[in-house]
Amino acid sequence: MSNNVSFGAIDDLCVNTLRFLSVDAVEAANSGHPGMPMGDAPMAYVLWTRFLRFDPKDPKWFGRDRFILSAGHGSMLLYSLLHLTGFDMPLDQLKKFRQWGSHTPGHPEYDIERGIETTTGPLGQGFATGVGMAIAQRYLASLYNRPGYPLFDYNIYAVTSDGDMMEGVSNEAASIAGHLGLGSIVYLYSDNKITIEGPTGLSFTEDVGKRFEAMNWHVQAVDGNNLSAIARAIEAGKAERTRPSLIIARTNIGYGSPAKQDTAEAHGAPLGAGEVRRAKEALGWPLSPEFHIPQEAAEEFRKAASRGALLKKNWDALLKGYQQEHPEAAKGLVKAMEGMDSKALEDWEGVLPAFSPSDAPSATRSASGKVLNAVAKKMPHLVGGSADLGPSNNTALNGFDYFTATGAGRNIHFGVREHAMAAIMNGMAQSNVIVPFGGTFLVFSDYMRPAIRLAALMKLNVVYVFTHDSIGLGEDGPTHQPIEHIASLRAVPNLTVIRPADAVETAEAWRYALSRKQLSGPVALILTRQNVPVIDRQGRGAKGDLSRGAYIVSGSENADPSAGPDVIIMASGSEVHIALGATDALLKRGIKSRVVSMPSFEIFEAQDAGYKATVFPAHVKARMSIEAGTTMGWHKYVGSQGDTMGIDRFGASAPYKTLYERFGLTVEAAVERAAFLVSGKKDGLTVETTV
Amino acid sequence: MSNNVSFGAIDDLCVNTLRFLSVDAVEAANSGHPGMPMGDAPMAYVLWTRFLRFDPKDPKWFGRDRFILSAGHGSMLLYSLLHLTGFDMPLDQLKKFRQWGSHTPGHPEYDIERGIETTTGPLGQGFATGVGMAIAQRYLASLYNRPGYPLFDYNIYAVTSDGDMMEGVSNEAASIAGHLGLGSIVYLYSDNKITIEGPTGLSFTEDVGKRFEAMNWHVQAVDGNNLSAIARAIEAGKAERTRPSLIIARTNIGYGSPAKQDTAEAHGAPLGAGEVRRAKEALGWPLSPEFHIPQEAAEEFRKAASRGALLKKNWDALLKGYQQEHPEAAKGLVKAMEGMDSKALEDWEGVLPAFSPSDAPSATRSASGKVLNAVAKKMPHLVGGSADLGPSNNTALNGFDYFTATGAGRNIHFGVREHAMAAIMNGMAQSNVIVPFGGTFLVFSDYMRPAIRLAALMKLNVVYVFTHDSIGLGEDGPTHQPIEHIASLRAVPNLTVIRPADAVETAEAWRYALSRKQLSGPVALILTRQNVPVIDRQGRGAKGDLSRGAYIVSGSENADPSAGPDVIIMASGSEVHIALGATDALLKRGIKSRVVSMPSFEIFEAQDAGYKATVFPAHVKARMSIEAGTTMGWHKYVGSQGDTMGIDRFGASAPYKTLYERFGLTVEAAVERAAFLVSGKKDGLTVETTV
Repeated sequence: MSNNVSFGAIDDLCVNTLRFLSVDAVEAANSGHPGMPMGDAPMAYVLWTRFLRFDPKDPKWFGRDRFILSAGHGSMLLYSLLHLTGFDMPLDQLKKFRQWGSHTPGHPEYDIERGIETTTGPLGQGFATGVGMAIAQRYLASLYNRPGYPLFDYNIYAVTSDGDMMEGVSNEAASIAGHLGLGSIVYLYSDNKITIEGPTGLSFTEDVGKRFEAMNWHVQAVDGNNLSAIARAIEAGKAERTRPSLIIARTNIGYGSPAKQDTAEAHGAPLGAGEVRRAKEALGWPLSPEFHIPQEAAEEFRKAASRGALLKKNWDALLKGYQQEHPEAAKGLVKAMEGMDSKALEDWEGVLPAFSPSDAPSATRSASGKVLNAVAKKMPHLVGGSADLGPSNNTALNGFDYFTATGAGRNIHFGVREHAMAAIMNGMAQSNVIVPFGGTFLVFSDYMRPAIRLAALMKLNVVYVFTHDSIGLGEDGPTHQPIEHIASLRAVPNLTVIRPADAVETAEAWRYALSRKQLSGPVALILTRQNVPVIDRQGRGAKGDLSRGAYIVSGSENADPSAGPDVIIMASGSEVHIALGATDALLKRGIKSRVVSMPSFEIFEAQDAGYKATVFPAHVKARMSIEAGTTMGWHKYVGSQGDTMGIDRFGASAPYKTLYERFGLTVEAAVERAAFLVSGKKDGLTVETTV
Repeated sequence: MSNNVSFGAIDDLCVNTLRFLSVDAVEAANSGHPGMPMGDAPMAYVLWTRFLRFDPKDPKWFGRDRFILSAGHGSMLLYSLLHLTGFDMPLDQLKKFRQWGSHTPGHPEYDIERGIETTTGPLGQGFATGVGMAIAQRYLASLYNRPGYPLFDYNIYAVTSDGDMMEGVSNEAASIAGHLGLGSIVYLYSDNKITIEGPTGLSFTEDVGKRFEAMNWHVQAVDGNNLSAIARAIEAGKAERTRPSLIIARTNIGYGSPAKQDTAEAHGAPLGAGEVRRAKEALGWPLSPEFHIPQEAAEEFRKAASRGALLKKNWDALLKGYQQEHPEAAKGLVKAMEGMDSKALEDWEGVLPAFSPSDAPSATRSASGKVLNAVAKKMPHLVGGSADLGPSNNTALNGFDYFTATGAGRNIHFGVREHAMAAIMNGMAQSNVIVPFGGTFLVFSDYMRPAIRLAALMKLNVVYVFTHDSIGLGEDGPTHQPIEHIASLRAVPNLTVIRPADAVETAEAWRYALSRKQLSGPVALILTRQNVPVIDRQGRGAKGDLSRGAYIVSGSENADPSAGPDVIIMASGSEVHIALGATDALLKRGIKSRVVSMPSFEIFEAQDAGYKATVFPAHVKARMSIEAGTTMGWHKYVGSQGDTMGIDRFGASAPYKTLYERFGLTVEAAVERAAFLVSGKKDGLTVETTV
């Protein structure tokens, strides 16, 4: 690709075009970050016009290189590149930078139709996401490439910043990338020596290159304003196939701004009209019109697009040959490229393990492991692992290889790196083929939240396997016992949280997670450490109704107020068994109870009002929830006259049965509290702290 | 201290005592981690008996060295050390390891009376917390040490693991520790080559020493079974005063267990009776009794206690001399050592800036900066900064120096390291003198959650300054707009979340945060980017009533149902102004509304039932909440017949006023929805998704 690495005046013109499109857009919005595009335009220009493989007419082309603007605040640099190289990003959009309804938001948002590979802005995320893209590349290459048919040989490029380098998640990701020898990674690090609070020297004086060398990276340092030097470095980075590459480019934030270059002032605010004028004068740029694109520059950028179109054509021909020579593999590949959806696995009933009330009680994490293994045999694109808790999370795919520096198996040892795992899962999902899963203890979802949030924002289909979901984990104590985590995850938009009550619901939860169309959003499975029996659903359908989010598992379904239940007890996960245990004792007191298993708030919320009213008829005001975690979130369903059984404090270290007793989560307590509700003695709208 | 670094048979006996006390306790609990204590006992033994300064009779002695078991799963090693050196940790407690009510939980929990300096278990946290302890040490030394009076010259020791090394937070912390040249840090890294999933080689092959050298650490490698080599390395680590030290000790997990040494099996489960027997035989240990402590070993350990008592006595003498020679400084110091509480600042009224409804509208983050600066002048132990967002968070203490490699100012450049910042704040708070504060955008609280959780679990008085608290931040878009964060923080036990509505409430929030006794728990201040006016409280007391968590700011206070309000509109932060804006229009429709400012759920929950009923009388069932974030959590207060105005989706990039309109958070919408509630047309217990 690197056929042309000599540069001249036209290239300087192009670089300045990138700079001032960005500057003008920030001015127009009166908001944004001009300094980064001004400083990083040279390296972005070299990368995009000499190396990056892309076809603006087919932005989803599977053989394209991936580009990540990890320093997402410099979004205008990306939008300028997309416009100039001919993506669906008209100039009009640049003029609407940061406005309602535009395709040019303040930070890049995943929009593959317009060439935006991933959402960035929260620092470190883009860096780590790229590692997932590189893992996906190698996995797909291993699965589909054949001699003479290197269909998946793309590289992962990124522009990163000092902020990316300081965030812990990037170090986690760099460590595993070096360990796995991900040679497809070529990252440019814009070392502009400036952070928001001032020179990086105020807080960041380490030897970044040496740190990355220690993690098995190929490291180079270049002058970020020297186009030829940048090109040579990228060339060398590409040539290094067994180590990821970091190119440390000394850049100048706000390059060209007489007063603001190399200062923090250039970072996060418009330059201001006067300084824009002085910068344009300094770099010999016409003062008007704004959004000026010299004709020669426009033509030069279009050459990259033409080059890309040719590459794409060649790739299509390669695929055609592949289909003839390797029809079986091609079939799977084409199906995969069309997108994983419910058709990926047609025979769910035949694949899912069967569980029955006569089985010995088992942890839902165990059931999850069985289901995952059964399904994985049929879904070659299900790839994942655990952040060093595989034996506890039951995430290993038995009989399949591991992903290593020399192999591309589908089991991944993520190491004790929960945050990077979640970001890597995002990058894997962005292959649009792989469905990644990753496990850890639920309590450590805290370490992953920034990356979970991005998965939710991008609606990526990833599956979190969060086990040890409550005080039920017992002796490890409060540092390991989730209290606030289920509620905190439910609070995240687009994230579907599922806490199955038994092995049957666990199988249905996996079915739900893996049956959805692409871009339906992440799913978090919340699983027990401790054993629970399989619920006897007494003729209500052996598999329950997890696909409704909440459903009746016991008691009257009659909606007639005169015959209906006296009390509704709703619960999730292991606490459904407490609710079920209370029904007989309540009946002995003449109280008809209904038990609702509520594995997922989000799925239930998506049901129609009619179904909701069937489960929670308005006339039944005596309602109680049971969940071994914070009661936050349940008041919506129990109502003003209801009660919430939960744990609004931190846990403790003791055997789990002791903890359930001490925290009042017992059948006996459920009976008493439900009976009290039915007695009508509870005052409706008095706000009481839950016991 | 290192007078005796030669070792003999008695020392081996002591090391084995540590090993088998730990092994026997894990067996008795039938739960726990035997491998780490078996492998790390030698280095812990050398550290505790030859170097660590402590006085078991005065565990809170300010001059003591700090010891952190960052590899918290090896808690039995710590409990064994505490027992043998004479802390308040009787053998009986070791026998109750991991049982309800014991002082020996599964992972160490902050318990300074028993010598446990900080809670550990979630990996990386102890490592990073120690960096905060080192910052505190240097700050206090700078404040109080005088020539000849090195009152604060303690070291920070830790035992860390490969898990600690893999977590991103430790890299963030290591980077800033190296930058600041924190020579008081001497960390032992137990390099046992084993993780839960198998050999570390499966996921972790970097050169850790080189990585730390790149971050300006002093790095040594030793044989972790060689007591003399360990002692020499600690000696050298102590001697290095301008760089933190890392001692990479090659250890053997499960040392002595014939079948399990150097395997993952030794990590997280009891060895089992047979293997315990074989291990005891292998190391020449009596098979019975369990919890055996040879007399000679007991005596040897007690020498360390005697040495510590002497050191403490000398320190007390030093302090006495200091009090005579530097009476003014001593006065401040003694007051500080007695614990920061409300007495630290007696004249709140004279110190807090006054704000008035006639002031120009200003962001609560600006008001926060003014208050913080005013208070800091009177509170020398208020120390903090921002994760590179100081100019946005308004966290700089003007006129005060910065904390650097050569100075110990009270402003800290944390760099783009939110997670380390939060963990460092924990360590600073554990000085029991410093009150740390740290700022970032609210959305990035996600990066800090594991450390926030530990602050809450330990009830440390730290103050988070979370600005840019909603879609009100505008153009930066959904990656930077918090939606789920306020609810997610409210879900954390012991954490007090305060979202002030104006400058007046902001001042009161700081007063609240800084007036509490030690160990009252962390406070999160949630502050706007955008300007808001100062509320005209119309004779209700110029300062409102933030100390109640929720209070009436407008409308009838009459509790008589016949005269009371028709609707209660409750809100927090900037949305209180929407609620206030709606009152007049509602009155024109004949609807009497009450507006409740609710800056803090947690403070309100702590009020008595009588006060709660005054604010939210049971007979007023038409209730509405307004908050520019997820509606989760508000249903408890609005009740079944209420309504919640909020945002249950991600935000968007646009000017903030546009966003408020597009998301329906306007005075007009509030009027319509409140009027609809009053009309009684809303069905009580139907579960509806919020618009």
